Amino acid sequence: MPIKHLSILGVGLLGGSIGLASRKATSDCNISGYGHRASTLNTALALGAITQSFEDPAKSVAEADLVILCTPVGTFESLLQSIAPALKPGAIVTDVGSTKRSIVAAASRFLPASVHFIGSHPIAGSEKRGIEFARADLFQQALCLITPTDQTDPTALSTVTTFWQSLGMRVQSLSPADHDRLLADISHLPHAVASALVAMQSDDALSLAGKGFLDTTRIACGDGPLWRDILLDNRDNLKAGLRRLADQLLQLEKSLDQDDAASLAQWLTAAALRRKKASQNTP
Amino acid sequence: MPIKHLSILGVGLLGGSIGLASRKATSDCNISGYGHRASTLNTALALGAITQSFEDPAKSVAEADLVILCTPVGTFESLLQSIAPALKPGAIVTDVGSTKRSIVAAASRFLPASVHFIGSHPIAGSEKRGIEFARADLFQQALCLITPTDQTDPTALSTVTTFWQSLGMRVQSLSPADHDRLLADISHLPHAVASALVAMQSDDALSLAGKGFLDTTRIACGDGPLWRDILLDNRDNLKAGLRRLADQLLQLEKSLDQDDAASLAQWLTAAALRRKKASQNTP
Repeated sequence: MPIKHLSILGVGLLGGSIGLASRKATSDCNISGYGHRASTLNTALALGAITQSFEDPAKSVAEADLVILCTPVGTFESLLQSIAPALKPGAIVTDVGSTKRSIVAAASRFLPASVHFIGSHPIAGSEKRGIEFARADLFQQALCLITPTDQTDPTALSTVTTFWQSLGMRVQSLSPADHDRLLADISHLPHAVASALVAMQSDDALSLAGKGFLDTTRIACGDGPLWRDILLDNRDNLKAGLRRLADQLLQLEKSLDQDDAASLAQWLTAAALRRKKASQNTP
Repeated sequence: MPIKHLSILGVGLLGGSIGLASRKATSDCNISGYGHRASTLNTALALGAITQSFEDPAKSVAEADLVILCTPVGTFESLLQSIAPALKPGAIVTDVGSTKRSIVAAASRFLPASVHFIGSHPIAGSEKRGIEFARADLFQQALCLITPTDQTDPTALSTVTTFWQSLGMRVQSLSPADHDRLLADISHLPHAVASALVAMQSDDALSLAGKGFLDTTRIACGDGPLWRDILLDNRDNLKAGLRRLADQLLQLEKSLDQDDAASLAQWLTAAALRRKKASQNTP
């Protein structure tokens, strides 16, 4: 099914980039954008990320074949309730949120049976926020995780998959539960740890920060309330990850206490090898 | 005192870059290089990072006004013992190691009274190793910490300060103890935590790594044995840092358990602000 009308709810870095990338991929697509600030919508229009702007999400989705929620995770429930009565029968709704169990559950609760929902999580973006950082090539070669369930309509699934592929992404399916478990480890925990590494520094130590520290903690620059919602939404998995991180740090402390140079070198070398391998997997 | 003859012990990324930067700064300086592999020395000669090569450190330092130890921290004691009998009276010895208490103590134990030692730690470099990554501009605008003591000769201190400045660095003095305490927090602990964040990942999670995770853990690519020596050498400060990190993570866990959205947002936002401020301080 070709998408004639796309609606992007939230035209920040991700929403704006989806608009720019979609217009590059298919020039004859209408793109409605919803935002709560007129200035953001005007910038999105001026940049060509959207073709029509709305300050009411229900109006933005009325004609849409595909609706993408690009606002923070914490706003999804109320946004679904706002748009539910306005969606066309057969419309497909997806999102770009960093957690998936809660939005999948909320969609089945709040959306009418005539509408299809599939959770998405494009692993792209940056610690920067706002339409001014939007880029048409943000998604090129990046990974998009989608989380269909037993109830997912195969045609809608195919449409969503093709849509992300048209933006240059590799698409991979997994369950909402697996998504949240794996992303807690590879994304949410590292964010929390980066924040903790900044929080524990004295001003004197922070004044000596080099490129290494700045790289390690760059993700901690992310928006506080946005990450608060992600961490709270995925707290069970995050807590399990914190325990496994603590196990690793206890092992380190044991090696230090026992002056166990062999174990320490092995642990550091194994981590270096796995980390180098990980960057080969990621374009 | 102008340096007519420089000796670089260990011509890897840092030693090689010091050679390239020194020749750019003062074209008439002899630069002896010591390495234990002939192929590395030949590359250093071919790149112009050194003007003479030696496979014996004592021979490399015989004519030198300034000697810089650029081998891993774990080799410093035996290297000082090797060069001690060969140093000219009045020669100045410094280093580029990531810890300072142990080398300062070893220098006062092993070097003759006719020789001056001042510890240095240029905060530059990368997780990459080897002469092939050496760059003349590696030190431009970077910070060099030096750790003089009550016994330090003022003229030697001035010579070392001027030397690092001639390579483009900002020079800051602090005590060896303060250096090791602050660097444990801002560098050694982040390295250990990055390694732990890699070690705790499942293969499935690691296959989903995005730019955020890769940035956060880039420093974990560093050489295992080299970092083993740094962590062991600074273990008391590292353990104190681990305890303060654990306090931060316990506070996070408490906020999650109590669903304390306000505290969590405040903690994340404060970290984001401090981290943004830190990158403004660092060129």
